[in-house]
Amino acid sequence: MSQILRINMNDRSHRWEKLPPELETFAGRAFTSNVVADEVEPTCDPLREYNKLVISPGLLSATGAPSSSRLSVGGKSPLTGGIKEANAGGLTATKLARIGVRGIIIEGKPPTGASTWYSVVVRKGKCEIIKNNDYAGIGTYDLISKISKDYPTKPGIIGCGIAGQRLGKGAGLFGNSIENTDPGRFAGRGGLGAVLGSKRIVAIISDDAGGSTPEPKDRTKFEAGRKKLVDALMKHPITGRLKDDKGKPFGALKNYGTNVLTNILSEAGGYPTRAFREGRFEGAAKISGEAVHELVDKTREKFGDKTEGKYGHPCQPGCIIACSNAVPYEDTGKAHVSPLEYESVWALGGNLGIDVLQDVAELNRLCNDLGLDTIETGNTLGMLMEGGMVKFGDGKGATNALKQAYDEKSILGRLVASGAKIMGETLGVTRIPVAKGQSLPAYDPRPIRGIGVTYATSNMGGDHTSGYTIAAEILGMKGKVTDPRSLEKSELSRAFQSTTAYIDSSGYCLFIAFCILDDDNGFAGMKETVDGFLDKDIDVTSYGLEILKKERDFNRRAGFTPIDDRLPEFFRKEPLPPHNVTFDVSDAELDKVYAPYWHAAV
Amino acid sequence: MSQILRINMNDRSHRWEKLPPELETFAGRAFTSNVVADEVEPTCDPLREYNKLVISPGLLSATGAPSSSRLSVGGKSPLTGGIKEANAGGLTATKLARIGVRGIIIEGKPPTGASTWYSVVVRKGKCEIIKNNDYAGIGTYDLISKISKDYPTKPGIIGCGIAGQRLGKGAGLFGNSIENTDPGRFAGRGGLGAVLGSKRIVAIISDDAGGSTPEPKDRTKFEAGRKKLVDALMKHPITGRLKDDKGKPFGALKNYGTNVLTNILSEAGGYPTRAFREGRFEGAAKISGEAVHELVDKTREKFGDKTEGKYGHPCQPGCIIACSNAVPYEDTGKAHVSPLEYESVWALGGNLGIDVLQDVAELNRLCNDLGLDTIETGNTLGMLMEGGMVKFGDGKGATNALKQAYDEKSILGRLVASGAKIMGETLGVTRIPVAKGQSLPAYDPRPIRGIGVTYATSNMGGDHTSGYTIAAEILGMKGKVTDPRSLEKSELSRAFQSTTAYIDSSGYCLFIAFCILDDDNGFAGMKETVDGFLDKDIDVTSYGLEILKKERDFNRRAGFTPIDDRLPEFFRKEPLPPHNVTFDVSDAELDKVYAPYWHAAV
Repeated sequence: MSQILRINMNDRSHRWEKLPPELETFAGRAFTSNVVADEVEPTCDPLREYNKLVISPGLLSATGAPSSSRLSVGGKSPLTGGIKEANAGGLTATKLARIGVRGIIIEGKPPTGASTWYSVVVRKGKCEIIKNNDYAGIGTYDLISKISKDYPTKPGIIGCGIAGQRLGKGAGLFGNSIENTDPGRFAGRGGLGAVLGSKRIVAIISDDAGGSTPEPKDRTKFEAGRKKLVDALMKHPITGRLKDDKGKPFGALKNYGTNVLTNILSEAGGYPTRAFREGRFEGAAKISGEAVHELVDKTREKFGDKTEGKYGHPCQPGCIIACSNAVPYEDTGKAHVSPLEYESVWALGGNLGIDVLQDVAELNRLCNDLGLDTIETGNTLGMLMEGGMVKFGDGKGATNALKQAYDEKSILGRLVASGAKIMGETLGVTRIPVAKGQSLPAYDPRPIRGIGVTYATSNMGGDHTSGYTIAAEILGMKGKVTDPRSLEKSELSRAFQSTTAYIDSSGYCLFIAFCILDDDNGFAGMKETVDGFLDKDIDVTSYGLEILKKERDFNRRAGFTPIDDRLPEFFRKEPLPPHNVTFDVSDAELDKVYAPYWHAAV
Repeated sequence: MSQILRINMNDRSHRWEKLPPELETFAGRAFTSNVVADEVEPTCDPLREYNKLVISPGLLSATGAPSSSRLSVGGKSPLTGGIKEANAGGLTATKLARIGVRGIIIEGKPPTGASTWYSVVVRKGKCEIIKNNDYAGIGTYDLISKISKDYPTKPGIIGCGIAGQRLGKGAGLFGNSIENTDPGRFAGRGGLGAVLGSKRIVAIISDDAGGSTPEPKDRTKFEAGRKKLVDALMKHPITGRLKDDKGKPFGALKNYGTNVLTNILSEAGGYPTRAFREGRFEGAAKISGEAVHELVDKTREKFGDKTEGKYGHPCQPGCIIACSNAVPYEDTGKAHVSPLEYESVWALGGNLGIDVLQDVAELNRLCNDLGLDTIETGNTLGMLMEGGMVKFGDGKGATNALKQAYDEKSILGRLVASGAKIMGETLGVTRIPVAKGQSLPAYDPRPIRGIGVTYATSNMGGDHTSGYTIAAEILGMKGKVTDPRSLEKSELSRAFQSTTAYIDSSGYCLFIAFCILDDDNGFAGMKETVDGFLDKDIDVTSYGLEILKKERDFNRRAGFTPIDDRLPEFFRKEPLPPHNVTFDVSDAELDKVYAPYWHAAV
């Protein structure tokens, strides 16, 4: 029996609510977006009393379906001013699902100027809201250690770091790793860490004592689907564990992680280098997934099993893709940072002209420790460089700037935690790579137009995960690549956006997308697990579209118009080397993404 | 024969254009807003190539009508993202009007990254665009001195200071005083100084050699109107030169300047103190117009005619109101800053909890020298204090922070020049007093609701001059005060907004409003001068409304909706002492301001 935990930070009270019938099929993003759209006044100040932070495990979390324990976090974004969902792996989705919590809704806030911080502990049918100033003002690595001592049962932990506590718009929510040693699982985007900080909550700790595995309503269908999906995932060259003729494993994600994309995108000329000035990075190989793989192997040779470096590491219980990693220090084999993802490597690497892997790892470790989104912060540092304050390629300069964010009284530190738009505008930069105020990720929209359409039209602001057309435009589907230069990408983007909204609700990791696009059996497996769990026949596309419509309506009521579905002017005016193309998709084509389904405000 | 000078900064070319018939009756704001609305793509980046900066003297500039030589500057605002007009006194309107220039339209920009700066010299039928790096990167006081040496004919000068050259959103356009010794005449608002800076123009110098007084088409009507208006202005207690029984002059503006309002507003409880936390300032008297008056008198006693302190100083040729001043150093009698206006004294004084007149004067001098709008910058410093970086009341702390803006490499300096919204958001402040991104002026909207309606609904963003209901709500019209607490203020605000749009086009200073509201003869005089000049019958209200509609349509196309016609949440939620009221005007009432005339997008 799923429940909703509603926490009111005005008076630090809580209550348990029965899951209403209209939310029965909604979990993950479907849950957070519906609750935000229905309960949050769209014009409210996202960092004051009337915003809500909504947390929900995916529908299949903890069920044993493969890679299905993602956690969604939603609210009104202080970065975009619109609705937001960000999701992450880690332990919390599993813990909450096992104790029957479909969602946590945090509303209200202690009075402005209050100096007390709180932590929230969720157990089966119980919730404690505890005054706890010890957890505030410290790095997330230290914080995880402290919590582990106070709660030695390996609970799920999510929270905000220093950046979120100070309401920096670049702040994400961190989550603990499955080993509970590391705060590297981030629901990073949209500044939702600042929303948690505005509620004066540092950490939410969930313990599953007395909990159990959620039971599918139609176990037979669920099991059949699970097997199909596992089979399809394991067979796919991106997500699988295949071996070549010589017995060498070549599953892309398992061996090289998401960072396998660095060389591919740079080769394709769509890797935004030095703040979106070029599309190919001469230093790509040195920071690529292959380089990380090699470094891990080298420390393994040197230190044997004592190395903490690894690849093929799962971010959530039950993940069989295992694309995560831990990057070791070369000289000691100790873990430097985990994980080092493609987007982060790009944001803090090629985007800054930095090709020293250890510098990139250190910047990422600092982001994690401060509770900052790597994509937003990488772009923010990019603007610091574009504005002439630090030189492109200067890893030490970037590190020093980022370290300022520990100091509450450092203006640079506060700015570094505030996102690329604010940094760029402060420095008079007119090449700020944002959509709806949120920084763009690691694919330049000029040579790869479909992802540009997603960036522009997504309800989430600049975000690749909301409609990852790269799968079709660069990696290919069913053996065929969709021309990245084509200017007609509205249907492609819409299809990806709607399917993604479904996946983000199911609890599945978005990386099942490769195998469900390529393998009908994989798609069927995904659908059968969801349908079997609910004992319903859920249409993937319409389920996704309904979420998108709900989100879009929130944004409309928050004051968004089609004008907000545009990319910054410089993408249309400055050609990107080496292909020297601009983003030429027409406004009419952008508006077509949502036009067939409902009228956007004009 | 009026002409338009069109300057293209892409190739530094220019051409003279005949004034087209549809612009014949448009000057000042009517000219700038029409040209911006018709020629500028509303979605363009305001600091890139496609924005235009439009400059136009008021219709009656240099005609001999009293106080009628205001200069309008327009463009898309980098601060609000909407259309903008800012106007100022000084010499330039007179100079341009005398050589038949109805407007200057500056378009294009040198390539991004260009290092050359330009100055523009406008003479009768001639324009030079001169490479001139000597004028860039220096304070505006030094700049005025340099230009005066290079151009010894006392030309009109407008330009941008260091802040605008670095594209700071708080930058205004400075203009020289009628004596050509001082850069204190600011078209300050909306960040238009940064638009000029983005065109890489430091200064526009206008010389009226060979020019002549513009000739009204119906001189008889014009003259009759002029006399009525002069008579009404001179009789009015606010604008006049009346004396009491003992022969002591008591004309408010002539003797105390706009700063006469400080004590009045503080007494009324509507003076936003310490970043809009309180409505009454205990130090008001010490920085009031009366205090300036006394200081000037004291230095006159001490230094005789050698004091440079003064009150009753005109900001433009032909001004008979003469509300400007020069604040002297007490110990030397030398001028410290000119002018020290009510809004500036508030922004840099009570708003920061500073009650030391010399500190306020010094902050204002720094703003002028840097080319920063005092209202925007005062609020920006207010956010620095609200964010805990400098203590309220710390004049030296505020001065030191502002001085950082000279240093291109100072992050604090760049932030101080970027406006209150960016500063507040960087520091996690959730009490940022802006409307459409622009800082509010010196009247708290909570106890004085009409001005709040203007702030919220004006096309210009937070701006008192766009519909100064204070005249009715605090000062009274025809001897009667309109209840400031009433929640029905849409009609009042609309009436003020439309009349203001007319006045801003005529070239008249807004301060004629007091006498035209109180004295039918004054209103008739205003209308007859305009009608006589054009030989037309111009309806004041419809002329103004047409401008507002044009502006609003631009904003709609730029993506604005009624949601942008709202004040920040804290005004509705935090009561303001001493009256402890919030801004309770309904959204429906706000939407009524424009609703009768056209539909805004929803």
